[in-house]
Amino acid sequence: MEFLVHIDVHLPPDLSPDERSQLLARESARGKELITQGTLKRIWRIPGRQANWSLYEAEDATAVHAAITSLPLWPYMDVTVEPLATHPLEGGAS
Amino acid sequence: MEFLVHIDVHLPPDLSPDERSQLLARESARGKELITQGTLKRIWRIPGRQANWSLYEAEDATAVHAAITSLPLWPYMDVTVEPLATHPLEGGAS
Amino acid sequence: MEFLVHIDVHLPPDLSPDERSQLLARESARGKELITQGTLKRIWRIPGRQANWSLYEAEDATAVHAAITSLPLWPYMDVTVEPLATHPLEGGAS
Amino acid sequence: MEFLVHIDVHLPPDLSPDERSQLLARESARGKELITQGTLKRIWRIPGRQANWSLYEAEDATAVHAAITSLPLWPYMDVTVEPLATHPLEGGAS
Amino acid sequence: MEFLVHIDVHLPPDLSPDERSQLLARESARGKELITQGTLKRIWRIPGRQANWSLYEAEDATAVHAAITSLPLWPYMDVTVEPLATHPLEGGAS
Amino acid sequence: MEFLVHIDVHLPPDLSPDERSQLLARESARGKELITQGTLKRIWRIPGRQANWSLYEAEDATAVHAAITSLPLWPYMDVTVEPLATHPLEGGAS
Amino acid sequence: MEFLVHIDVHLPPDLSPDERSQLLARESARGKELITQGTLKRIWRIPGRQANWSLYEAEDATAVHAAITSLPLWPYMDVTVEPLATHPLEGGAS
Amino acid sequence: MEFLVHIDVHLPPDLSPDERSQLLARESARGKELITQGTLKRIWRIPGRQANWSLYEAEDATAVHAAITSLPLWPYMDVTVEPLATHPLEGGAS
Amino acid sequence: MEFLVHIDVHLPPDLSPDERSQLLARESARGKELITQGTLKRIWRIPGRQANWSLYEAEDATAVHAAITSLPLWPYMDVTVEPLATHPLEGGAS
Amino acid sequence: MEFLVHIDVHLPPDLSPDERSQLLARESARGKELITQGTLKRIWRIPGRQANWSLYEAEDATAVHAAITSLPLWPYMDVTVEPLATHPLEGGAS
Repeated sequence: MEFLVHIDVHLPPDLSPDERSQLLARESARGKELITQGTLKRIWRIPGRQANWSLYEAEDATAVHAAITSLPLWPYMDVTVEPLATHPLEGGAS
Repeated sequence: MEFLVHIDVHLPPDLSPDERSQLLARESARGKELITQGTLKRIWRIPGRQANWSLYEAEDATAVHAAITSLPLWPYMDVTVEPLATHPLEGGAS
Repeated sequence: MEFLVHIDVHLPPDLSPDERSQLLARESARGKELITQGTLKRIWRIPGRQANWSLYEAEDATAVHAAITSLPLWPYMDVTVEPLATHPLEGGAS
Repeated sequence: MEFLVHIDVHLPPDLSPDERSQLLARESARGKELITQGTLKRIWRIPGRQANWSLYEAEDATAVHAAITSLPLWPYMDVTVEPLATHPLEGGAS
Repeated sequence: MEFLVHIDVHLPPDLSPDERSQLLARESARGKELITQGTLKRIWRIPGRQANWSLYEAEDATAVHAAITSLPLWPYMDVTVEPLATHPLEGGAS
Repeated sequence: MEFLVHIDVHLPPDLSPDERSQLLARESARGKELITQGTLKRIWRIPGRQANWSLYEAEDATAVHAAITSLPLWPYMDVTVEPLATHPLEGGAS
Repeated sequence: MEFLVHIDVHLPPDLSPDERSQLLARESARGKELITQGTLKRIWRIPGRQANWSLYEAEDATAVHAAITSLPLWPYMDVTVEPLATHPLEGGAS
Repeated sequence: MEFLVHIDVHLPPDLSPDERSQLLARESARGKELITQGTLKRIWRIPGRQANWSLYEAEDATAVHAAITSLPLWPYMDVTVEPLATHPLEGGAS
Repeated sequence: MEFLVHIDVHLPPDLSPDERSQLLARESARGKELITQGTLKRIWRIPGRQANWSLYEAEDATAVHAAITSLPLWPYMDVTVEPLATHPLEGGAS
Repeated sequence: MEFLVHIDVHLPPDLSPDERSQLLARESARGKELITQGTLKRIWRIPGRQANWSLYEAEDATAVHAAITSLPLWPYMDVTVEPLATHPLEGGAS
């Protein structure tokens, strides 16, 4: 099942540049893992913001929760998850 | 997987009493079928409104869409569907 | 009477890991007590968030207030409580 | 248990003056009955609108739903019902 | 004239338990005075929250402002005040 | 006591030009009366809309309700009324 | 450039079944053309609603406007279009 | 002075094709006049909608109201007007 | 041209009583100057809040911005400014 | 392609006057560069706020994201970017 996910990131202003770059590097590494395993199918930047829309594939809401909370930036995220149903135009295959 | 569903019903004001009672009877019959087959697990009235909260169990968003749109009142409903994940307090069994 | 409860948790960012895990352990213990005594009937995680939907059974709003404020995480919660009425499809028994 | 109720009325514009005055007369009569039986404890007009705030006393949400839907204007109302808990300043007696 | 008042309280997280209990004691004392003088006619807890709905009687908006800002918790409150008009069902006497 | 009033007008699209101009003429006449008697102290158009902000002086919310509902366009208005308190900069005289 | 599009459809209630099925057939045909030409890359149903999220690829906002307004259901749609920027996790290739 | 104007158009569904095209032709003609006289400085389509953002230059809010209400589609528009101040980056010349 | 201004003030909680009273004294002094020069025509307290509605007269949005940002409390204000057009009931003179 | 950009700035209250003026000087310098290179076509102050509306020209959303995030104040901004389509009144040339 696919989910449309909206994430806004609010990093604490008092992170040192080092902490910040390490955190972002770990976030990027974990994101790549989720892509490789097929959980994170697409991700787009929302222009002008530290925010993104992304498309997840997971067995159910419990699995998508596990994937999102595995991201190192999760404590600084505001997240909404929307369930997606198959549209007939895609022929029932998603 | 479970879904929390919010439904507001806005019946057209020009339904005759007959059309209205037939429609509501068909809605009730279809609701009972969904309960019997285990798709509609709980349903509550929102006090003061022709509206309800309900709890669906379905394989995925496509299946919950099929269940909701099978309701005779669907053309008059405003519906939102929220995905639910298992909470650790329920021991992983839902 | 049943109530539908929506809770968003915002833990203070400066909790030490110890304080955090002790707080969560106490929260879990109190949650189990509320389940055992029949006050907390269902609880679901809202995917992607430290938030939940839950279903309370309590005599009235004063009792549900007492139950929610007994949770150790209450000072960090944003809570809304909605009253639920019996739906005819459930045959008057809830 | 007490409930705070917000009601906005939107009468259909094509009511004849007769239908309208009969409907309002029936609404007023039913409102008086609810006051007499102690269900409708207070009611206030929201200035400038055909709308009101009111205070209901009822056993539970099912009973307050029954009271509100017994009003002849109910099909034309947009209603929200909020549960009220006892405040310590009132000494536990409401 | 009556006013419907909605108050959400957000206490600063770094209050010491002593400061907190003294503040709440002064709040309670001032609340009782407002009740005694007939300014605060009713007050209800909003379940699950440190918040309340209350009913004030005051000569005008300037007087209700004076009453609310006399509360020791006022610096920590988010307040909205709605004017209430007499409803015909109450016979012009409020 | 003064009130800040926001009014949006939505005229029914099927008014004949005659009905419309007669209605607007009666609205204007009633508006002038409210100005003359000191109830309607200021009125501004909200640019681009059939809407206005206005400043009423009335004894209480019941009186401002009576003034607004005396306007011939009232059945087509969406109205909100906000209570205004005296600001110290105006020296207590309003 | 990619765009995330949210569409809610509100068909007029007085369409005859014939008009309705013809309209939906034309909508489906046009949707398939947009898929074939690579403009409409993905489309999902929003469960419970006659609504969808979709992903468009178009040269700019003018081109995406032309694509959406070419849909036979467009007069009955409420549409919002959000611009999407490339996310570094996708390596700059979208 | 410049104003940022947001317009959503909702044409009545029962316009005949002839009425519709005549109305749109008159709208276009009036739009061109406003451009020629320097009142309407820029106009953009909001993709996917019958809506636009536009930039007006007018002496004050009364003049911008006169310009917008001179548009033949005005009775079908939902309009908001925002005042714009000069930004230092533009050197005080707008 | 007149503007309707809505201001919410959020003073930092760690101001010393001295800083606070000096700031408020300077705010009051500047407010009086704006009244004297005819820029600030009316100001009302919003009951229960540290907030106000006010009526400014200024040549354009740039001038009203200069007036508001000259207030010592400006760094702590959340401000919205709405343009006002002349209403025919006021005879074109404002 | 053009974009309409809305920016609210929230500077941290604990910036020293020096840090603040240096930051604003760098912001102004970068803004001028964006104007010179044709990316930032117009910018307006929103009266009463540290906020602006601006008009960007960029190849796509990725380019406008790069431009906005190059501003020194970006970490303190809340930004929304709306895509703009060509309006027929501008003759297809923007």
